[in-house]
Amino acid sequence: MDDTTRKAVVRRLASAAGHVKGIERMVEDDTYCIDVIKQIQAVQAALNKVSVLILDTHLRTCVTAAIQGDDATEREAVLHEITSVFELTN
Amino acid sequence: MDDTTRKAVVRRLASAAGHVKGIERMVEDDTYCIDVIKQIQAVQAALNKVSVLILDTHLRTCVTAAIQGDDATEREAVLHEITSVFELTN
Amino acid sequence: MDDTTRKAVVRRLASAAGHVKGIERMVEDDTYCIDVIKQIQAVQAALNKVSVLILDTHLRTCVTAAIQGDDATEREAVLHEITSVFELTN
Amino acid sequence: MDDTTRKAVVRRLASAAGHVKGIERMVEDDTYCIDVIKQIQAVQAALNKVSVLILDTHLRTCVTAAIQGDDATEREAVLHEITSVFELTN
Repeated sequence: MDDTTRKAVVRRLASAAGHVKGIERMVEDDTYCIDVIKQIQAVQAALNKVSVLILDTHLRTCVTAAIQGDDATEREAVLHEITSVFELTN
Repeated sequence: MDDTTRKAVVRRLASAAGHVKGIERMVEDDTYCIDVIKQIQAVQAALNKVSVLILDTHLRTCVTAAIQGDDATEREAVLHEITSVFELTN
Repeated sequence: MDDTTRKAVVRRLASAAGHVKGIERMVEDDTYCIDVIKQIQAVQAALNKVSVLILDTHLRTCVTAAIQGDDATEREAVLHEITSVFELTN
Repeated sequence: MDDTTRKAVVRRLASAAGHVKGIERMVEDDTYCIDVIKQIQAVQAALNKVSVLILDTHLRTCVTAAIQGDDATEREAVLHEITSVFELTN
């Protein structure tokens, strides 16, 4: 991961962690359940965006290098990983 | 939300926030992208479980009270909220 | 389910089935993979809308009747079913 | 897409379309709402598997060819498409 992307990913993760801490306080303050669930869904959506950012970088670096490389096993492994994370998010 | 549930929800949220902070360090340490994405998906799954726990409590308290109550507008509002969070998670 | 809703649900399901048959033909005609995946995602989104429509009706009829009724076991069962479908879609 | 994969994809899509037609009849026969929703979720899961199968094939053919090729614009386009379908399914 290049430096700019890594910093962006770290910043978004820090923001997501802060958001979750905020939801913790909402629950302690007895906030209405549906509002809490909506905030949790917002964090999940923000985390999705982080995953997409990481996947994008991964495709442009590791996957591209593996596919252009000579190691068929490595190529196979790298492609299989993509479908495995896709499968999970579905 | 009763005290036991609230404590369980807060504990799970604290654990999810800690997990996200851990992922932040993984990214700073240049962990393999796919492993990072899988950890993000694990946090999202943990957050889903928190939402289900909150929804369960909400159905047994607020929704039950509203449906047993006399206020038709309130009943309508409470039912609409359930479908709205369902819609979002789909 | 009242007649109007049932007809709307059946109509949407018939349309989704037709959409899937159309995707089948796209694959036979060797359509570009990504375009096929996007059509599959469109069908899934359409099916989500059907689920929301059915859930909405279910909350207003069966769930409301059970919660207003005297049978605690039935009430419990009906609420548990809501969280179980929520859990699955997450 | 090679012939074996195409046939497998078409077969699974035909089965999904048949499943949706079956759900249509369930609704006409006034099947319990929650059972209908669970069947819809089963179709959606089956469609996910079809998407994963198509993505797998796509990565091994078009994406591999583009990444090994000389056209930078084509490479960029192909990688962007992967993140775009990933984004949608999240």
